[in-house]
Amino acid sequence: MTSEPPSPPPRRRPGGRTSRIRTQVLDAVRAELGERGYDGLTLDAVAARAGVHRATVYRRWRDVGGLLTDLFEATGDDDWQPQDTGSLQGDLAALNHENQAAMTARPSTAAALIAASFRSEEAARGLRRLWEDRYARCEVIVSRAVRRGELPPNTDARRLLLAATAPLYHQLVLLRMPPDPGLPEHAARAAALAASAGAFATSPADDA
Amino acid sequence: MTSEPPSPPPRRRPGGRTSRIRTQVLDAVRAELGERGYDGLTLDAVAARAGVHRATVYRRWRDVGGLLTDLFEATGDDDWQPQDTGSLQGDLAALNHENQAAMTARPSTAAALIAASFRSEEAARGLRRLWEDRYARCEVIVSRAVRRGELPPNTDARRLLLAATAPLYHQLVLLRMPPDPGLPEHAARAAALAASAGAFATSPADDA
Repeated sequence: MTSEPPSPPPRRRPGGRTSRIRTQVLDAVRAELGERGYDGLTLDAVAARAGVHRATVYRRWRDVGGLLTDLFEATGDDDWQPQDTGSLQGDLAALNHENQAAMTARPSTAAALIAASFRSEEAARGLRRLWEDRYARCEVIVSRAVRRGELPPNTDARRLLLAATAPLYHQLVLLRMPPDPGLPEHAARAAALAASAGAFATSPADDA
Repeated sequence: MTSEPPSPPPRRRPGGRTSRIRTQVLDAVRAELGERGYDGLTLDAVAARAGVHRATVYRRWRDVGGLLTDLFEATGDDDWQPQDTGSLQGDLAALNHENQAAMTARPSTAAALIAASFRSEEAARGLRRLWEDRYARCEVIVSRAVRRGELPPNTDARRLLLAATAPLYHQLVLLRMPPDPGLPEHAARAAALAASAGAFATSPADDA
């Protein structure tokens, strides 16, 4: 793996040829990763699948690390927002359902990217940034619940989100158990109950 | 990676030469994994570090997968039990403290084994069995709490243990965040509060 970063692919011309090639290449990276995993990911296979000249792929993305870095950047560069269902438990359950669906799709890009993060420094960095951005976007779930009076204002949003979402990933990725269809709702309910009981209050007064 | 399983190393003579060699070799595997990770793990390096003839290592363990399979077997073959602190929250916090200490040791065999499980089928299988055994042993935490009257008898032990322990692994392994010294206690408290609020009751009557 090279330590020199690949030249950043130009990507500010939506609809242009550059942008079209990037879309084709990153779609091919997703498909190759999902089907073959990190070990099967090569620039030649990506170029062939994308129908893009291999010299273009080598010049713009340089190596597998460059492809992964750009894939994470493109994945995070969307307008995703958590669903607004009208209740804390509903919002957390919707988030867990989305996560479980992404992790159990066949093939699953999400699962392949997590696996790749144990193989490639670029993937580990890209995934860390992506999670960080996603958890930040999810904080609105907590602020909405505070506005509705479901939670006290001093709720630690990050710890509440961690409690609600971690069980599903732990079970699928680390324990490698089959998906439990009831877990998205169940983990959301447990986190919401703990939150109502003051488990995520941050001030010492509320933390007794 | 060979698909043929390695010949099982003979290991029923505690204190004998066979047992001593196994201990030396598995200690060397732990050290090599912790220092160099899966990519640096070779039978030659393990033999050299263990001070055991490489022909012996090749004959008994065959390949890296054989070493990992035996390491997981040896790791699970202990008398580990969760601490009995006298309360549900205390027991869960003690468990989380142990897990966080194991994951943040430098080098950490636990972290190296998790990373290896994304590289080797043998490691993935070994880790799955090890987790399964550990969670089964931890169910006593819940049955003690039921006996003390802290929890209703129909508590889903596995889901409660998952809720209590998942946040720590999620944060360290998947989100790759620095260890949060308050998280072991905090996640234990959140799970215990959710349990008190009926989040892990299994019968429909208690699940309203």
